[in-house]
Amino acid sequence: MYELGVVYRNIQRTDAQVADRLGPLGSATVHEAMGRVGLMKPYLRPIYAGAQVSGTAVTVLLHPGDNWMMHVVAEQIRPGDVVVAAITAECTDGYFGDLLATSFQARGARALVIDAGVRDVRTLTEMKFPVWSKAISSKGTIKATLGSVNVPVVCAGMLVTPGDVIIADDDGVVCVPRASAQKTLDAAAAREANEGEKRAKLAAGVLGLDMYNMRESLAKAGLRYVD
Amino acid sequence: MYELGVVYRNIQRTDAQVADRLGPLGSATVHEAMGRVGLMKPYLRPIYAGAQVSGTAVTVLLHPGDNWMMHVVAEQIRPGDVVVAAITAECTDGYFGDLLATSFQARGARALVIDAGVRDVRTLTEMKFPVWSKAISSKGTIKATLGSVNVPVVCAGMLVTPGDVIIADDDGVVCVPRASAQKTLDAAAAREANEGEKRAKLAAGVLGLDMYNMRESLAKAGLRYVD
Amino acid sequence: MYELGVVYRNIQRTDAQVADRLGPLGSATVHEAMGRVGLMKPYLRPIYAGAQVSGTAVTVLLHPGDNWMMHVVAEQIRPGDVVVAAITAECTDGYFGDLLATSFQARGARALVIDAGVRDVRTLTEMKFPVWSKAISSKGTIKATLGSVNVPVVCAGMLVTPGDVIIADDDGVVCVPRASAQKTLDAAAAREANEGEKRAKLAAGVLGLDMYNMRESLAKAGLRYVD
Amino acid sequence: MYELGVVYRNIQRTDAQVADRLGPLGSATVHEAMGRVGLMKPYLRPIYAGAQVSGTAVTVLLHPGDNWMMHVVAEQIRPGDVVVAAITAECTDGYFGDLLATSFQARGARALVIDAGVRDVRTLTEMKFPVWSKAISSKGTIKATLGSVNVPVVCAGMLVTPGDVIIADDDGVVCVPRASAQKTLDAAAAREANEGEKRAKLAAGVLGLDMYNMRESLAKAGLRYVD
Amino acid sequence: MYELGVVYRNIQRTDAQVADRLGPLGSATVHEAMGRVGLMKPYLRPIYAGAQVSGTAVTVLLHPGDNWMMHVVAEQIRPGDVVVAAITAECTDGYFGDLLATSFQARGARALVIDAGVRDVRTLTEMKFPVWSKAISSKGTIKATLGSVNVPVVCAGMLVTPGDVIIADDDGVVCVPRASAQKTLDAAAAREANEGEKRAKLAAGVLGLDMYNMRESLAKAGLRYVD
Amino acid sequence: MYELGVVYRNIQRTDAQVADRLGPLGSATVHEAMGRVGLMKPYLRPIYAGAQVSGTAVTVLLHPGDNWMMHVVAEQIRPGDVVVAAITAECTDGYFGDLLATSFQARGARALVIDAGVRDVRTLTEMKFPVWSKAISSKGTIKATLGSVNVPVVCAGMLVTPGDVIIADDDGVVCVPRASAQKTLDAAAAREANEGEKRAKLAAGVLGLDMYNMRESLAKAGLRYVD
Repeated sequence: MYELGVVYRNIQRTDAQVADRLGPLGSATVHEAMGRVGLMKPYLRPIYAGAQVSGTAVTVLLHPGDNWMMHVVAEQIRPGDVVVAAITAECTDGYFGDLLATSFQARGARALVIDAGVRDVRTLTEMKFPVWSKAISSKGTIKATLGSVNVPVVCAGMLVTPGDVIIADDDGVVCVPRASAQKTLDAAAAREANEGEKRAKLAAGVLGLDMYNMRESLAKAGLRYVD
Repeated sequence: MYELGVVYRNIQRTDAQVADRLGPLGSATVHEAMGRVGLMKPYLRPIYAGAQVSGTAVTVLLHPGDNWMMHVVAEQIRPGDVVVAAITAECTDGYFGDLLATSFQARGARALVIDAGVRDVRTLTEMKFPVWSKAISSKGTIKATLGSVNVPVVCAGMLVTPGDVIIADDDGVVCVPRASAQKTLDAAAAREANEGEKRAKLAAGVLGLDMYNMRESLAKAGLRYVD
Repeated sequence: MYELGVVYRNIQRTDAQVADRLGPLGSATVHEAMGRVGLMKPYLRPIYAGAQVSGTAVTVLLHPGDNWMMHVVAEQIRPGDVVVAAITAECTDGYFGDLLATSFQARGARALVIDAGVRDVRTLTEMKFPVWSKAISSKGTIKATLGSVNVPVVCAGMLVTPGDVIIADDDGVVCVPRASAQKTLDAAAAREANEGEKRAKLAAGVLGLDMYNMRESLAKAGLRYVD
Repeated sequence: MYELGVVYRNIQRTDAQVADRLGPLGSATVHEAMGRVGLMKPYLRPIYAGAQVSGTAVTVLLHPGDNWMMHVVAEQIRPGDVVVAAITAECTDGYFGDLLATSFQARGARALVIDAGVRDVRTLTEMKFPVWSKAISSKGTIKATLGSVNVPVVCAGMLVTPGDVIIADDDGVVCVPRASAQKTLDAAAAREANEGEKRAKLAAGVLGLDMYNMRESLAKAGLRYVD
Repeated sequence: MYELGVVYRNIQRTDAQVADRLGPLGSATVHEAMGRVGLMKPYLRPIYAGAQVSGTAVTVLLHPGDNWMMHVVAEQIRPGDVVVAAITAECTDGYFGDLLATSFQARGARALVIDAGVRDVRTLTEMKFPVWSKAISSKGTIKATLGSVNVPVVCAGMLVTPGDVIIADDDGVVCVPRASAQKTLDAAAAREANEGEKRAKLAAGVLGLDMYNMRESLAKAGLRYVD
Repeated sequence: MYELGVVYRNIQRTDAQVADRLGPLGSATVHEAMGRVGLMKPYLRPIYAGAQVSGTAVTVLLHPGDNWMMHVVAEQIRPGDVVVAAITAECTDGYFGDLLATSFQARGARALVIDAGVRDVRTLTEMKFPVWSKAISSKGTIKATLGSVNVPVVCAGMLVTPGDVIIADDDGVVCVPRASAQKTLDAAAAREANEGEKRAKLAAGVLGLDMYNMRESLAKAGLRYVD
């Protein structure tokens, strides 16, 4: 994979209504709805607590220590997008700060997900521009080598194809492929619908052992109780 | 060690009054009072700042990626307990979320300490159910393999026997064995009693060098000053 | 390097006015102004968000698990200093807590930067005494072995000579050598002066591609656009 | 991405002659020939030194702690294949040992590349069945959950599509997409052809500065020499 | 747990014949025979390949950077023992080198397992004194603080009680409690007995899918094949 | 620190006879002789076992992913030198391979110590050109940004001034400042002289407890024996 020096201008974004509705369901519910796949590695952490976004992925592939393509991807952002940045090797440098965030926000980006470092996090927090990153670092970058924009990339262990849906919150970042976004939304919404009733029962002291009828299968597996 | 497929229902909990009084002394003071032992590895971090708890340990041993026994341990919780979860191999999956937290809280648990991942951290924060964990991850788990409940476990490098006292705050997590809980409480309280006076002296500009009479021993060790 | 058992009492501090003016410029801008050098490794993190300090370095070299010299360095602190603590091997123990912080603060220290662990972080946060550290840990230390005070040290991968300027904020920690402090301040201030105008343009939707005239050089490097 | 519970039996393998010729060129040369992309993360290490293989990828996607699909993928191996195993979350368990290696070898597999752990490494070394893995661990796995075979997977940060070419040696593991395998082979062979002459010159004491005509560009970039 | 300043001279060692017979079965087989528990974390690695030992545990608890108790434990070694060294906090210092190895070997120790660093590895390799450690480091240690000998310790995440059996080879380190050593030996030997026949079948091309009758359960779980 | 874009041609190398005699004493003995300082972090590992070198440091400072200055430093190598390469941020890329090694070897370099990655390790092993590195990686680098040659650098946590002595073996890498090289050699040789006699005693079964007269100080510290 990994074509270098190319910018794809026309990508097929997931329907905005589907993308928007996935966010509030949360990364954990969506990840379960996909069959427990789609999750980026948990080393990606939000720069501040409480952000919860979803949007359509525009992707950028960068080389270690070089953020030139960040300026190229900015032009490809449309309102409702989340920028997903992958690096061709491990790097913790600060590829992104308040100036780029101002530009991304002006173009309508909702967030950045980056498999590297970010800086100016206090200003980004004040701007309410959320970033999920591997590191926070003042280390600046150069502008010397071409990467690509809107090619499929691997970010924090997960393949992201431009136009996929990104769901990010305090629990992590999930990627839902465009082709399965509607199906995933339906499954996740169904999961969510059940949760209120379950929560009420558990709050009332009902045990999961009984609510999920686990006692029999546990006994069959050989669980024994000792007084 | 590590007996599998067993739930011990009757464990000897440390006296509740002792357990309760250890919490406010803090993990650092208690750890010192034990002779600088008893501390879990510092990679365990609270999911939100400011929580400070102590309680009696109920333990659960789980396999990687499998949270079945979490439902089994819920039944064994009594008010004032802290659940301590160990895994038989390294794992960052999210074993615990808002539904289990609702159940644990309804049973009277004060906190969870887990050598793996947790999810729904925003909701857990709103519920004020504190968790000390190795990771935050949306990754769900299966229910396929038996572990055990209320067996001695190693959590983040420290042995925890059911009924021991767990003290957890922003500085980390300490385990005090039941047999030495009263003695540790006495020693920790004595340490604490001294601190106010020391703090006042230091705030007034007195140096630790003088307050602790270190100058002579430093000189004896060979320390020399160069102007 | 690394002379042991010595305390240098007279060090040449960078001019206080220069040191003070570097802080508000921020670690990222200062690091760029130095030619993208001077940054400590990004594993150093502040114990609470929002702190932003600069000051002149007093240094202390310690052995793993031994904080004896922390009391020795306290005496050498002058108002406006930042204490920089290096360890002779990797260690996450909690070398520093609220008592030492009280003493450091009483002597006029603005912050601690330590390549190891710290404890009592809740109290330190309440005291508004910021610390940048590698770990948070209740683990206490002993007082058995001599290190040194005000010798050049390597902290988190960066050489710090006593009297250098330390700039620390949410993005990380930068060290500016005394000899280049004024020059760095001028360069950083110049960078900063440009940023307001750039930010306004970017906020108005102007692209970095145009504002920085990147299109030609990208095309020359071979970038191609696909519709 | 990540379809679960599916085995694709018919995959389009890269032409065997192309795959076979890429191996001796080595992972470093092939990676350069692709434009410095295609490399799996360097935490993947061979279980013994000196192995050098290339072959066509058959892929398997597994859940943490569950190696059931390893038996399913065995049936899909053809002579000349390299099995690439990805896990849906971080895991260091030993998914693979001497029995599976015997089976894989009998089916014609040349190697295993796995983003997790492996065991029986002494026997595997004696069998000359090379494995590139993230860990070595005795920890066994269960057989409870479906993954997939011959779907695209992300292994150690790199996308692998079934039929791609895997090149693995002491320097690491590279994946060459089927579509660009011939082009990459040509480019890599051309690079290789030049190396002998260069090596002779350098061995004779000619400097890279002169051989590559770097002096002018270094001077233009501002390099200065101080005597 | 963790009593400090005590040396237990009389420990109940597992029967030597049982301990000796567990070694050749290997850590992976023994770990499986215990129900997939008992394994130390896989970051412990042998300092040279090919060593395979088993023996009865004598334990030593040390403080970070302090190897004083290594000399104390030496006296407690009997022929057939394996020394297991735990540290009260994370440390990579080199606690053990060729002089201590000479002493340990003279006392009849078969190996050292240490949750820290070791040095003089070339000489240890020549002496054929195997060590499983977390790090290799020239960093020396001091002799200032008491630990304990022959108390239960946690080493690399696993509880070890003096007299337990340690099995260590290229795949890792397993601890078998004295009480279950005979039972584990029987189970491990039974597993081993089956392996030869299985290996022959697999080498002949029989698939695990058939040999283990997995096809039906896979189909029941929903696995589907696509041509 | 860290001046960029400069090559210092005239450095003061430690006397060759002193540098040469330090190597056979080994990194552990030399590190002890310096008072347990001078050691680079233990994550630096040799690419093959058994190499043991010492030599005078020539230094090179590089940017992440950019090995341009490697060609510049080659010209400054004199017979007996060891090249020490530092990077301005964390990086695992393969900065150095067989062509550069051929050039370095032709210039008389004895080894490379690099706080980053290396490649072509099989060829380097055949050439007997030892490298101590943080990673092994096929990832290539670009040639775009100036660093410096023969400035003081921090490599793996240790300050190295050009002309210092580097001692590297299987236990790690130590830097001895030029000014203290003779004194360190004398102290290390004295330590070494004692070791033969000690080893003989220990091999004969004498305990360190007796040989070092530790029993009294242990008893004074409170050690007690329990039968």
